Amino acid sequence: MKKSPMRVELYYWPTIQGRGEFVRLLLEEAGADYVDVARAKGGVAAMMRFLEGEEPGALPFAPPFVKGGDAVVSQTANSLAHLAPKFGLVPDAEALRAEASQIQLTIADFVGEIHDTHHPIAGGLYYEDQKREAKRRAQDFVQERMPKYLGWLEDLLARNEKSEGRWLVGRDLTYVDLSAFQVIEGLRYAFPNAMARIEPKIPRLVALRDRVAQRPRIATYLTSERRLPFNQQGIFRRYPELDAPAPRRVARGARGRKGRR
Amino acid sequence: MKKSPMRVELYYWPTIQGRGEFVRLLLEEAGADYVDVARAKGGVAAMMRFLEGEEPGALPFAPPFVKGGDAVVSQTANSLAHLAPKFGLVPDAEALRAEASQIQLTIADFVGEIHDTHHPIAGGLYYEDQKREAKRRAQDFVQERMPKYLGWLEDLLARNEKSEGRWLVGRDLTYVDLSAFQVIEGLRYAFPNAMARIEPKIPRLVALRDRVAQRPRIATYLTSERRLPFNQQGIFRRYPELDAPAPRRVARGARGRKGRR
Repeated sequence: MKKSPMRVELYYWPTIQGRGEFVRLLLEEAGADYVDVARAKGGVAAMMRFLEGEEPGALPFAPPFVKGGDAVVSQTANSLAHLAPKFGLVPDAEALRAEASQIQLTIADFVGEIHDTHHPIAGGLYYEDQKREAKRRAQDFVQERMPKYLGWLEDLLARNEKSEGRWLVGRDLTYVDLSAFQVIEGLRYAFPNAMARIEPKIPRLVALRDRVAQRPRIATYLTSERRLPFNQQGIFRRYPELDAPAPRRVARGARGRKGRR
Repeated sequence: MKKSPMRVELYYWPTIQGRGEFVRLLLEEAGADYVDVARAKGGVAAMMRFLEGEEPGALPFAPPFVKGGDAVVSQTANSLAHLAPKFGLVPDAEALRAEASQIQLTIADFVGEIHDTHHPIAGGLYYEDQKREAKRRAQDFVQERMPKYLGWLEDLLARNEKSEGRWLVGRDLTYVDLSAFQVIEGLRYAFPNAMARIEPKIPRLVALRDRVAQRPRIATYLTSERRLPFNQQGIFRRYPELDAPAPRRVARGARGRKGRR
């Protein structure tokens, strides 16, 4: 594994996992020398200076962004693609890098749709102000979109003979596997019923999730204070009214009782 | 300008500009040897074979994707980042490539939000089945999101001293400028009232749009049959009920008549 002596500054909202978590997982797995700037005193103000155009370098539209040396790099997938080669978390071959990038960008689309289940009308409005629309959108998400995205990731694993289906790209773990782990964790938090139904259909992806969770640095990170808990301000939120109905086991019991009458 | 002898196959839905148009514009500006596969006989079936996993190479989640040599590259921004260096449409420096990518990905987010103005609940439902929600989402889009994204692009031009504000990245035209052109064209089609109000505030971006439209190859393309017209199946759709109210000129006339009574 290549190791960079560069110190990385990560800029992201300090109280949520959000999109920043995909970058945190890369930096943790890499054992990188990094600072989560906005979680230190004065850090949010430092982040805002970039967003308001008061710092040199590329202007980010939104967090997360990273700074290493002089380069300011924003957009989650772009930050990951920028950092990964410096830490050996993506293969060198151009075709495999493009493959990693297309998977990460599809995960980004998935994450955007997950966010929009609770904010289908406007990010600037409260959930309570778009609750009816959220219920409608979440129903389609759980029935159509979530199985489609998860099934696609499962197919990728089945197709990747290079690692015997253990990793998404090439022979070894890449940053994309860390992101797939995070999506599974987030969906288990936000949609526990829907996930309980779908997990038997995506065994390779669940095994990938377990494989990532057992990486020594990731395991240490997950039990540290650096790992923020999921909460109701992030992308993955637990609103039971947006989840699928409780799994069949319960429904079968209910039918059973009905039958006994 | 570097020129690649490689023949590029573009796979995208044959009747809409959609996300495929960002790739078409790159290929046209490059003077590339390319084929828009799905617009030829049997082409949609050829595209479906990739989506159904019946072809080798990386599995696309959705069109557009491109194939050049053996590599199958999907996700619009990733396809562009893959093609641009082969045609001299992005600088060589890593920092500038990352900057181009972050702008393209932000444009992709913008395009996603534009799509969701008419499909806030589900892509699989008709507009008519989510018209009320669309009106609510479009109102927020026109008032908040559209000015924010366009203002950010205008700021990028103002900051780019390397080209005296003529291009978004570095000294010369890149693929990102072509995408910015397409967004302005699409917004003029879909939200003519909102654009009439906002254009005076984004003069650099409007000038960029004109500069791109006058490139010889782009000008030729725009009047050719290869350029599909905007229509009500694509990302940019004209639903007057989703646009801002008519511009002030009309409102002022109405006030004037009222004053004469």
